[in-house]
Amino acid sequence: MRLLDSIKAPADLRKLSYEQLAKLSDEIRKEIINRVSKNGGHLSGNLGVVELTIALHRIFNSPYDQIIWDVGHQCYTHKILTGRLKEFETLRRFRGMSGFPSPEESVHDTFVTGHSSTSISLAQGMAISNELKGEDRKTIAVIGDGAMTSGMALEALNYSGHLKMRNLIVILNDNEMSISKNIGGMADYLHKLRLEPIYTTPKDYLAYAAKSLPGFGNRLYNILSRFKGVFKYLLTPGIMFEELGYTYIGPVDGYDFDMLEKSLQRAKEHPGPIFLHVLTEKGRGYEPAISASDKFHGVGSFEIETGHSLKTPSAAPTYTEVFSEAICKLAEEDSEVLAITAAMKEGTGLQEFARLYPSRFFDVGIAEQHAVCMAAAMANSGLKPVLAIYSSFLQRAFDQIIHDVALNNLPVIFCIDRSGIVGEDGKTHQGVFDISYLRMIPNMTIMSPCDDKELRLMLEFAAKKAEGPIAIRYPRGKVEFLSSSAKTDTEIEYGKSVMLKDGDCLAMIAAGNMLSSAIKVAEKLKKEKNIDAAIINPRFLKPLDKAMLESLKERKIPIVTMEENILKGGFGSAILEELSDMGASNRLLRLGLPDEFITHGTRKELLHLEGLLPDQICAQIIAFL
Amino acid sequence: MRLLDSIKAPADLRKLSYEQLAKLSDEIRKEIINRVSKNGGHLSGNLGVVELTIALHRIFNSPYDQIIWDVGHQCYTHKILTGRLKEFETLRRFRGMSGFPSPEESVHDTFVTGHSSTSISLAQGMAISNELKGEDRKTIAVIGDGAMTSGMALEALNYSGHLKMRNLIVILNDNEMSISKNIGGMADYLHKLRLEPIYTTPKDYLAYAAKSLPGFGNRLYNILSRFKGVFKYLLTPGIMFEELGYTYIGPVDGYDFDMLEKSLQRAKEHPGPIFLHVLTEKGRGYEPAISASDKFHGVGSFEIETGHSLKTPSAAPTYTEVFSEAICKLAEEDSEVLAITAAMKEGTGLQEFARLYPSRFFDVGIAEQHAVCMAAAMANSGLKPVLAIYSSFLQRAFDQIIHDVALNNLPVIFCIDRSGIVGEDGKTHQGVFDISYLRMIPNMTIMSPCDDKELRLMLEFAAKKAEGPIAIRYPRGKVEFLSSSAKTDTEIEYGKSVMLKDGDCLAMIAAGNMLSSAIKVAEKLKKEKNIDAAIINPRFLKPLDKAMLESLKERKIPIVTMEENILKGGFGSAILEELSDMGASNRLLRLGLPDEFITHGTRKELLHLEGLLPDQICAQIIAFL
Repeated sequence: MRLLDSIKAPADLRKLSYEQLAKLSDEIRKEIINRVSKNGGHLSGNLGVVELTIALHRIFNSPYDQIIWDVGHQCYTHKILTGRLKEFETLRRFRGMSGFPSPEESVHDTFVTGHSSTSISLAQGMAISNELKGEDRKTIAVIGDGAMTSGMALEALNYSGHLKMRNLIVILNDNEMSISKNIGGMADYLHKLRLEPIYTTPKDYLAYAAKSLPGFGNRLYNILSRFKGVFKYLLTPGIMFEELGYTYIGPVDGYDFDMLEKSLQRAKEHPGPIFLHVLTEKGRGYEPAISASDKFHGVGSFEIETGHSLKTPSAAPTYTEVFSEAICKLAEEDSEVLAITAAMKEGTGLQEFARLYPSRFFDVGIAEQHAVCMAAAMANSGLKPVLAIYSSFLQRAFDQIIHDVALNNLPVIFCIDRSGIVGEDGKTHQGVFDISYLRMIPNMTIMSPCDDKELRLMLEFAAKKAEGPIAIRYPRGKVEFLSSSAKTDTEIEYGKSVMLKDGDCLAMIAAGNMLSSAIKVAEKLKKEKNIDAAIINPRFLKPLDKAMLESLKERKIPIVTMEENILKGGFGSAILEELSDMGASNRLLRLGLPDEFITHGTRKELLHLEGLLPDQICAQIIAFL
Repeated sequence: MRLLDSIKAPADLRKLSYEQLAKLSDEIRKEIINRVSKNGGHLSGNLGVVELTIALHRIFNSPYDQIIWDVGHQCYTHKILTGRLKEFETLRRFRGMSGFPSPEESVHDTFVTGHSSTSISLAQGMAISNELKGEDRKTIAVIGDGAMTSGMALEALNYSGHLKMRNLIVILNDNEMSISKNIGGMADYLHKLRLEPIYTTPKDYLAYAAKSLPGFGNRLYNILSRFKGVFKYLLTPGIMFEELGYTYIGPVDGYDFDMLEKSLQRAKEHPGPIFLHVLTEKGRGYEPAISASDKFHGVGSFEIETGHSLKTPSAAPTYTEVFSEAICKLAEEDSEVLAITAAMKEGTGLQEFARLYPSRFFDVGIAEQHAVCMAAAMANSGLKPVLAIYSSFLQRAFDQIIHDVALNNLPVIFCIDRSGIVGEDGKTHQGVFDISYLRMIPNMTIMSPCDDKELRLMLEFAAKKAEGPIAIRYPRGKVEFLSSSAKTDTEIEYGKSVMLKDGDCLAMIAAGNMLSSAIKVAEKLKKEKNIDAAIINPRFLKPLDKAMLESLKERKIPIVTMEENILKGGFGSAILEELSDMGASNRLLRLGLPDEFITHGTRKELLHLEGLLPDQICAQIIAFL
């Protein structure tokens, strides 16, 4: 029997020797590698924090003490150790265990997290609440060095240092990586700290130690005190954090149980706020994940021996791959094209661009606000910045899109990947709000391609014709090739839709990749019910094609809109507004996502859940007619 | 004749002696005080940077060198010196000069700014563009110490330090104030720097100086070099900025032209990025603004001799004053009520709360993201955080509202001041997006009061009944008292509207303060056209009162919605969605704001511009019917 199977709760960890802990760590690593190789998930990060998680649960008393995992994708060991070994089998599966912390699963999960850099803010909110309620619990934020480049983490560090919160501990899980290689002055600084000798001792301890030295101890203490300001710089490597009001401890080897636990114990006993710097390694213990930690950051199923992907090869590229190629082509033709990413070089397909055009490529780290604002200034200088970003992460830069880009009407090109349902990453990662939050912004143009050819054309159109901000939204996953009747290679005209086929009973307007469903639905409607449906590819979600809508108005034909976005304020809502303003009386059925957060599962399972598979759409349309 | 009248362009400044500059500074101060006393505007900040602005325009060559004013409300001297003395009379007036930088007015204004902490990102975007284009211009961001607590400024500082941008200069305009007293570890750190001896010399200069000392200079240089790491700490007060990759110069007295210009010259010659720390004083030269710099941060017209406001006293309180009183009352009754602000204690009316309940009051500085995320954690701990914030600034925390508050369905109460048209601050400050960006978020409840009584009731309702996030939006300015027929003191029921009066020809659904207009419109319609209009106060903008809408559907009565929000995705759009889903055939007229950014002017001028004054609404309704 594995040691692991005997751990029913964190308390069971406290009975084990360091030798047993080493064995347990191995077992957990095997369990994680095995599970992720089947279910997919976040691998490298989880392999890095096995020992740290064990040590945390030995020194602190969860759930009384509160642990917050920043981003949350490194919580697998935490989940396994808090009574969820059995459920771990269902990781990221529909109705199974979430890949992120989830209070619905366990009291040990304090908060749903998923986006980066929230943990210090959350920890501070909890610590303040505990103080107000007179509870002496410790609150611990575990945050990666990548997440430390994000504005909110720095806002929180700044404020919590100032408030001198006694029970707040920030643990920097420093693997010199966010997802891509880490970025920024802070990263350079942390790198230097790694190279300096190890001080696990906060400065007050040092003074205390000096004082207790026989003979000249007291004199040393006096000297230290007198030149306090000066010696602080010499004695404390983490001066930047000290200056912000934290006591810095570190750097500590994240795989040395003895050192780790001593440091955690000190962090627990010393009045906070404490900043504990722990050194870890992404992919620890699994060679393929160490040598390609980017690839194994988030991964699909793979063969354990080799690390090779088990995805069945297919002729169809992903939208990301199409974008990757198209942006390089564009950059070759036009030296004014720049590319910007926020720590998602690989995810958004900018590796090749970065390799070919290093001086025109900018990875700002996890700093979406800065990325968008900087892009505004570049566009203002006459260049053509293309910002490649995931839909749900772009939410972070909402104000910058309004205030810096759109208000100044600047031609920044937003390439919004992972729009719509993303699948297994679930609630925090679904890209289902972007149509709503972008179309309300003045000066904004929104396009959505239905296949690879259209994505290429749209990107080219944006780079050549943009006079203001343009967003191009496309989903995760593979392109569905459409027949030539889809006319996806016809020239793009500003604000113009394309009618694939006409029909008298019904007009379907399907945004982006919903077009392929619409085509299937039309065939089925014709075949089964002899319903003749028109199919329209809007291409532009804003502005809408008014001439097309005018003609539908005159024909008084029922309209169905389809989108992978919430219905509130979405594409169908835009059509509705336009029809209402025209005084049109057409009946309208809006298909899309409901007013709720959407769980994890495969794309297909989730589309089925929301009634958006072709058969389901057919049934809804028949009922509507 | 004033010296000021002879300055037609920045070049004219370079001919003047320091004595003349002192005289010019006085003249500019008088001009600013005089103008703001009539037109209202930002006073204290502008009085603080007169000398810095003059020195900047003497040492740098605008517009070739690019100056970016963070927030932008301190640009008055800049505007006066760049050929806009005459237009300064029209400051903040409708069709007059903007109170913020505006490229439409002058090539010396590089960008529209208005929200805090964008300048370093913008400067970096420009500097990168200049480098790519092979232009050797300097780009200078002037940022206040308050703005330095915001995440985006720190993101930008982090990234630009890392990129080692030669032509980038950040000037910290440090007056130890943002708007309220400054917050955070960074502020504490800057405060310490102020107290340390003045070093205007970057460290390389110091080494150079050492080398040039006769006799032992070379030895000193060698020692300095050998112990570089150590001595850097001793020689450089701005070590935090040095660690991030900047060369720190300062602190420099912002009123000593000689020192200021020498420092700016060094910043210009030394390879960047440079961080120049300048000490200024809010309200400099005008006693009332020094002693009450909060009050004079942004101010209406006042009497110059005394600083007293010239606003005519009125019985009606502002919505902010009503909130201020109501939250204190609530806090007295319920010890779980907390208040949070992001550097807007005075503006949002939390002074009294802060005085009475200091341990339950949190001013996080200009850090809206952190404020919202921290509030989420407090609500999760069972407390009742009330976040008081301006509508347009809340945009900064859009992702936190979705990801941390709404996804976790936490009862955070958002009191959204300055919703709708705010007037003279113009484009960047209009609070006209919040209904659209909040109603698309699952789990969100939105209320809007039509008067003081309803605001009190809604706040109480939120504190007592909230099971998820609740937003209460209310406008800038005074409450319009409504007659008792408005029934604004009746108990609030979740999701229920109130019908003020019925009518057969038309139903007006008017959100928040538009209700008072609706009442006037109904009277006028009755009197002039014998049109009998129903008036409905929705109270809840989300969820909508379906029973009310069902009954309107059955009566097939034309509906008019009114809101001070953009129409795209707004309140009227929500009503439209609901009616469409019900299959209702009512005709609908949506009144609100168009798909564009709204300029500055008085509220009345802007409502007139958009056709939203009662007479105009009447005319539109008659045309619609």
